[in-house]
Amino acid sequence: MNKQINSVAPMSDTTSEALSVDALAADCKAAARELSTLSTETKNRTLRRMADALEADEEAILAANGKDVSAAREEGLDDALIDRLVLNPDRITKMADALRDVASFADPVGEMGGTTKRPSGIEVGKMRIPLGVIGMIYEARPNVTADAAGLCFKAGNAVLLRGGSNAFHSNQAVAAALHTALEAEGVPPAAVTLIPTTDRAAVQEMLTLNQHLDLIIPRGGEGLIRFVDETSQIPVIKHYKGVCHLYVDEDADLEVAEDLLLDGKVSRPSVCNALETLLVHADVADDFLPRARALLDDAGVELRGDDRTRQLLPGVGAATEDDYAAEYLDLTLAARVVESDDEALNHIAEYGSNHTEVIVTDRLPTARRFVRSVDASVVLVNASSRFSDGGELGLGAEIGISTTKLHAYGPMGLEALTTEKFVVYGEGETRHPVEK
Amino acid sequence: MNKQINSVAPMSDTTSEALSVDALAADCKAAARELSTLSTETKNRTLRRMADALEADEEAILAANGKDVSAAREEGLDDALIDRLVLNPDRITKMADALRDVASFADPVGEMGGTTKRPSGIEVGKMRIPLGVIGMIYEARPNVTADAAGLCFKAGNAVLLRGGSNAFHSNQAVAAALHTALEAEGVPPAAVTLIPTTDRAAVQEMLTLNQHLDLIIPRGGEGLIRFVDETSQIPVIKHYKGVCHLYVDEDADLEVAEDLLLDGKVSRPSVCNALETLLVHADVADDFLPRARALLDDAGVELRGDDRTRQLLPGVGAATEDDYAAEYLDLTLAARVVESDDEALNHIAEYGSNHTEVIVTDRLPTARRFVRSVDASVVLVNASSRFSDGGELGLGAEIGISTTKLHAYGPMGLEALTTEKFVVYGEGETRHPVEK
Repeated sequence: MNKQINSVAPMSDTTSEALSVDALAADCKAAARELSTLSTETKNRTLRRMADALEADEEAILAANGKDVSAAREEGLDDALIDRLVLNPDRITKMADALRDVASFADPVGEMGGTTKRPSGIEVGKMRIPLGVIGMIYEARPNVTADAAGLCFKAGNAVLLRGGSNAFHSNQAVAAALHTALEAEGVPPAAVTLIPTTDRAAVQEMLTLNQHLDLIIPRGGEGLIRFVDETSQIPVIKHYKGVCHLYVDEDADLEVAEDLLLDGKVSRPSVCNALETLLVHADVADDFLPRARALLDDAGVELRGDDRTRQLLPGVGAATEDDYAAEYLDLTLAARVVESDDEALNHIAEYGSNHTEVIVTDRLPTARRFVRSVDASVVLVNASSRFSDGGELGLGAEIGISTTKLHAYGPMGLEALTTEKFVVYGEGETRHPVEK
Repeated sequence: MNKQINSVAPMSDTTSEALSVDALAADCKAAARELSTLSTETKNRTLRRMADALEADEEAILAANGKDVSAAREEGLDDALIDRLVLNPDRITKMADALRDVASFADPVGEMGGTTKRPSGIEVGKMRIPLGVIGMIYEARPNVTADAAGLCFKAGNAVLLRGGSNAFHSNQAVAAALHTALEAEGVPPAAVTLIPTTDRAAVQEMLTLNQHLDLIIPRGGEGLIRFVDETSQIPVIKHYKGVCHLYVDEDADLEVAEDLLLDGKVSRPSVCNALETLLVHADVADDFLPRARALLDDAGVELRGDDRTRQLLPGVGAATEDDYAAEYLDLTLAARVVESDDEALNHIAEYGSNHTEVIVTDRLPTARRFVRSVDASVVLVNASSRFSDGGELGLGAEIGISTTKLHAYGPMGLEALTTEKFVVYGEGETRHPVEK
C-alpha cells in the first residue's frame, strides 16, 4: 500500500504501517485555515450537498453497513449494539435531514457582540471564530460521522474522525459521500477526515498531536472516555455519566412532581438525562411517596429507599451507597427522604455528577437558592430533566455534553465549537506618547 | 513536624514528607463550595480587608522579603530577577490598591444574559458561575500571590498557589496577611492556600489532582510553562511567547505606522505585546522603510531585514528564519517587504504566535480581511500592539494570557475565571406526554 494516504481514503482496510495520522492531522489543519473564512452561503450550500450525497450514495452506504453488521453478528455483539450500528434508508434520510438542519442554523462565525470605547480611544470588540481542528473519537453509531462533520464544518472547523471498529466500513462509505460534496463545492476534502484504520495505535498517535488538534471530544462508554482523557495531550471535553436527581420540596406542586418523575424516569431510562434518584422533603413524604410508588409500580420501576422511605412504603428494598452513586440507565430508582433543603443540596453535592438536577417547588426563594447552589451544568425548576439536551435547550443540535467547566458546561452546540478573539479598531492610538 | 498542615502555614520551611498537597487541594475544594454563593458585598468587604491587612503587615512582609532577597543575592541571581523579587512600602501599597481595584470591579458570578422561551414552554437562560479551584504556578514576583488570590476570590474561586522558591518567605508573609482578613470575615482561609514548600515534588503532585482542581494557570518562563503543560492532568491555560507583527499596508497612513512602530517596539521591549517584526507592502516600502530606519536608529533599535529591505536600507543586517521566529524582547526588530496582503497573512500564519497582530491601513476591505483572516487572540487595526493587555482592553485586571483557544483566547480577566450553567424554569413541562 502506498505511503501517501489522502483523506479520501479507499474503502479497504489499511494497516497502520501505511498510515501517518500526523500527516492526516496536518492536512486537517491546513484545511481549517481555509474553512475559517468560508462564507456562510458556501457552508450552507455544501452542507445541503452533503445531505444530498448521502441519499445519492444510499446503495453503497447500505452495502458497506451490511458488511459491518454481518461481522458484528459473527462476533456475537449484543442486539443493542447492533441496533446502533444498523443503517437503513430511513436512518440515512435522517442523517441527511440532520445536515439540512445544520445548514439552517445561524452561523456563529464572525459574530461580534457590543463594542466598548476605552479611555485610550480604542474600540474593543470580540469576534467569534472557529476553534480549528476537532478530533472526534466515538463508538458504534455511523450517524455520528455525518452529524459531527456537519456541526464542525458549520462552525468553520476541520474534523478528524475516529469511529468505532465495528462501524469501519459504514463510516468510510459515509465519509466518501461527504467528500463528493466537499469536492463539488471546491472545499478541501481534508475538512472532514476519517482515520482509515481500526488500529488502536492510531488513536494513541492522534491524542499526541497537540500541534495540529485543538480539542478532542470522545463519545461512548466510560472506559473509552477515561482512556482518552488520561492519554490525551490535547484538551478533552467530556462527560462520564448522569446521576440526575429530582428534589420534591415541601412547597412542591405534587401533580407536577408526579409528571416530572414519570417523564424523567420512564420516558427513556437509557439516556444520561434520565432520573436516577428521588429526594423528597419529609413534610410531603407521607403524601407524595405513596402516590409516586403507585405510578412507578404501574410503569414497572423498581424503587430502592432509605429507612424513612421504607417505613412509608413497606416492601421497598434498601438503597445502599452504591445505589445513590449509580447511573442505573434502566427502570430502577433510588429514593431518600430529607429533612431540609440543605440535606437535599448536600446529597446532590455528594452523589451528583454535575450533569442535570431538578427541583419541584412553588416557593421562589427555595427555587433561587437551589439554582444558585447546585453545581450542575443544567439546573431545572419545575421542568423535566429530559429537557437537558442541546435541541431542547435551543442549541439546534448537540455535539456532546460537558460536565467539566472549562470552555463549556452542559450540552454543546455550534457555539461551543468556536471561541472569541479580541478585535480593536483605532486611529493611531499608542499606549505611551511617541516622541519623534 | 505535625502531619496536619492547615492552610495558614507557619512561616518556616517545611519538608514534603510532612505535606499532603492532596489534603490542601481537598480543603480548597470544600472552601470553593462556600465561596460560590458568597454575596458580592461580602466578597468586596473581604477584598478591602485583605488590602488593609497587607499594609498592616508591612513590617513582617518586608522582613520576610529581606530574607528572600539576601538568599537570592548569595545565590548570585541576576539583577532583573532580584528586581522582580524585591518588595518595598510602595510596592506593598500597589499590591493593596490592586485588591481594592478588584473589589470595585463588577461581580461576574450570578449574571444571567437573556432568557429564551422554547416551543416546549420552558424558559432557558445561562448563569455565570465560578470555575471552582484554580491552581497558580508562578515564579519570582510575590505580588502575584496577592493579585491571583484577589481575582480568583472575586470570581468565587478558591486558589491553590505555588510560588517560586526564591520568593518563598515573601509569599508566606503575603498569604498570612490575606488569611487574617479571610478569617476576620468568616471566610474559610483555605480559599487562598499557599503550598508551604519549595519542593518540586509538590508541583508534580499538584498537577495530578484533577479531582480537586479545575484549572492550572502557569506564569513564568517558557521552560516552566512547557513543564506544567506536559505534566498536568488538569486543563492548563497558558501562552508561550508573543511574536507580534506590525503590517504596514499599501494604503497605510505612514504617520500612524511610525507611531505604532515606535510605541510597539520601544516603549517596553521586554513584554510579550511588544513588536518583533515589521512587514511593509512593496508599494510603500520606498517611502516608509527609510523613515522607519531613522526613527529606529534614534531609539537604538537594531534592524534585520530581507533582501528587499536591505536594498532600500544599505548596511542593515540580514534577517534569517530564526529572526522571523524570534521573540527578541529587546531593541532588535526583523523586517520584510511583502508584495501583497496575502504574503503578509502567510508570513503571520507561519511565524506568528497567536498572540497579537497589527495592521495599519485606511482601506476598509483590507482591514476587515486582516481581522477575519489572522489567527491571533488580539487583532488591532491602526492601534498599538501594546494595547493587548487586560487592563487596556477593559477587563479590569489580567490573571494571564491564553494563546490556545479552549475556554479563553487572549488576556484573561474575571470572566475567564468563570463558566456558565444552564438554568431552566418551567411550570411542570415534560418532554413526552405523561399518562397517569
